[in-house]
Amino acid sequence: MITKENIKKIIVKKPLTLDCGKIINNYPIAYETYGTLNEKKDNAILAFHALTGDQFVSGTNPITNKSGWWSYAVGPGKAIDTKKFFVICANVIGGCMGSYGPDSIDPTTNKTLGTNFPVITINDMVNAQYNLLEFFKIDQLFCITGGSMGGMQVLQFVANYPDKAKTAIPIACTASHSAQNIALNELGRQAIMADQNWNKGNYFNTNLSPDKGLAIARMAAHITYLSKKGLQEKFGRKLQERDDLKFSFDADFQIESYLRHQGSVFVDRFDANSYLYITRAMDYFDLIKQYNGNLSEAFKTSKTKFFIISFTSDWLYPTSENKEIVIALNSAGADVGFIEITSDKGHDSFLLDVPDFLKSIKKFLEANY
Amino acid sequence: MITKENIKKIIVKKPLTLDCGKIINNYPIAYETYGTLNEKKDNAILAFHALTGDQFVSGTNPITNKSGWWSYAVGPGKAIDTKKFFVICANVIGGCMGSYGPDSIDPTTNKTLGTNFPVITINDMVNAQYNLLEFFKIDQLFCITGGSMGGMQVLQFVANYPDKAKTAIPIACTASHSAQNIALNELGRQAIMADQNWNKGNYFNTNLSPDKGLAIARMAAHITYLSKKGLQEKFGRKLQERDDLKFSFDADFQIESYLRHQGSVFVDRFDANSYLYITRAMDYFDLIKQYNGNLSEAFKTSKTKFFIISFTSDWLYPTSENKEIVIALNSAGADVGFIEITSDKGHDSFLLDVPDFLKSIKKFLEANY
Repeated sequence: MITKENIKKIIVKKPLTLDCGKIINNYPIAYETYGTLNEKKDNAILAFHALTGDQFVSGTNPITNKSGWWSYAVGPGKAIDTKKFFVICANVIGGCMGSYGPDSIDPTTNKTLGTNFPVITINDMVNAQYNLLEFFKIDQLFCITGGSMGGMQVLQFVANYPDKAKTAIPIACTASHSAQNIALNELGRQAIMADQNWNKGNYFNTNLSPDKGLAIARMAAHITYLSKKGLQEKFGRKLQERDDLKFSFDADFQIESYLRHQGSVFVDRFDANSYLYITRAMDYFDLIKQYNGNLSEAFKTSKTKFFIISFTSDWLYPTSENKEIVIALNSAGADVGFIEITSDKGHDSFLLDVPDFLKSIKKFLEANY
Repeated sequence: MITKENIKKIIVKKPLTLDCGKIINNYPIAYETYGTLNEKKDNAILAFHALTGDQFVSGTNPITNKSGWWSYAVGPGKAIDTKKFFVICANVIGGCMGSYGPDSIDPTTNKTLGTNFPVITINDMVNAQYNLLEFFKIDQLFCITGGSMGGMQVLQFVANYPDKAKTAIPIACTASHSAQNIALNELGRQAIMADQNWNKGNYFNTNLSPDKGLAIARMAAHITYLSKKGLQEKFGRKLQERDDLKFSFDADFQIESYLRHQGSVFVDRFDANSYLYITRAMDYFDLIKQYNGNLSEAFKTSKTKFFIISFTSDWLYPTSENKEIVIALNSAGADVGFIEITSDKGHDSFLLDVPDFLKSIKKFLEANY
């Protein structure tokens, strides 16, 4: 049985200089794989997870006993067909599913790091995961892909390692975190830090944890993952197991009950400090600034073939921001395709059963393998 | 000097049956007026405030020492010209500026009501404020107006009192609170109730108050009052008094600092329980359901001349929802005008210096007086 203690991981010996200046080494990268790496080692796909994801892409997540976060897209016969491709996914550093993160033990104190963990960036995440290529002795990945923060990692990966991915599918993402997105992440962080159980991040050594704050952060984020129209169609003003309003602060409406549920189940599987660190990394992401205001410079030396996907009702990373990436790629002379998928399911579309989206990925992979 | 103790108010003796079934009487309605009521008493404008507003529309709010919430629109020579019109504004019941609310003293216990205050509705608010017409012996108001929750009150007022307003200007509002809006309000309520100082609403009698929870609620709401584009133009990724990222959880970005400031100043002027009650009233608002699914029935017997205003970048009460009101009014054979104002300032546009908006109100009032 897989537990958090015996989760698959590599220990990276090679020192990594983080963007904050700190050097780390001997740190774990937890990962999972699906399918079989062929002899030529040309069928590997590295999937990058989003804010609250982990390495368990498909099938049942052995820790949460829920479906993997990309079960609609990844599996035998699916869009990312594991009968054909070898899918690798790693927990990002800063995460809470076995990779080096704020819940890691500090060997010098034998306590969890908490907020002694360094502030990391998308660049740091990508550089840490790059070690998996050496571990699997893969010279070039067939594809790198991911949605949301996963898409940001795709962009950063190509910028850092221009010849290491034959193809790339960044989905529903941005090259530079917007003011609204920073504001929404800051809201979540403030909710966590306002919970007195957070205890400045040192809650691992207490019996208390900032569950209420983390649940509020999740509720806030969850609203942004869905579209106004999608919420209206799914919930509208439907009442929760009652015939009429109760004139109280109970959950009268289904949407209230749903949100509370989303908050309460989230705290069972996610760590509040990880939420702080990963949202910070997203807010710090600005590939445009990394290349002095010219995004096309990030892709100038790469031969990677790109396929960019956005969703009509995604207001968190709208089509306009995805198109900026397309423009920069075109400006760099890159091979780039783009599709905006019609969906009322908002930003979450990339995680859901959206047939046009899944078919687009499947066809792109088949055509380029 | 005006203090919370000697604020202008009427005590309503006549019993009012609330939507929850409870009957209230001898309750205070705090109000303010601007300009002079003429002899014919045909120049009165009743302005309804939004969620966190109060009766201090114009000039300096004597309690907060800040500008009144509608200072751009109301004053001598302004869009709502107080040299010409007599503007009345009352604090809604459920509020915290002198009207009957959760901070009112329960005479039977001599303690504040807290969550013993009844859950109220927009309908209750409007019926309570109607008593001001009798107090001022005004037979018909020249105009009723308000934005956001103020606009909801305008719609409810015409439905309840079809011959009591000559004209009506509902701004940036809706006839039925959407699932997304309920979700956003529920997020704010959960943030307040998660603060252990909230103490199930009985914090008035402790030295503690749920400031952190209320600040989170305000931050969340504030993000929704501004547009993505407006935030990007005003803040973008500008840093807060620093040359580079600090790799910490301090406010690196101006938008973070701004949000924290919005949260912290709000708790000095607003009561957490009022926030719960007023957001609940907004969520309960569904004028369409009140008229059995046919909104035009709400306006069928009214002769009120309507002018509906929405803003292009308002995603909280978008133009589409304002147009539903226009359609219902047309369907009721009402006299109705409509304008969508181009503005990047989001929902907050109705409170700000948006010249086309202010000019539209001014011209409508002049043409119809």
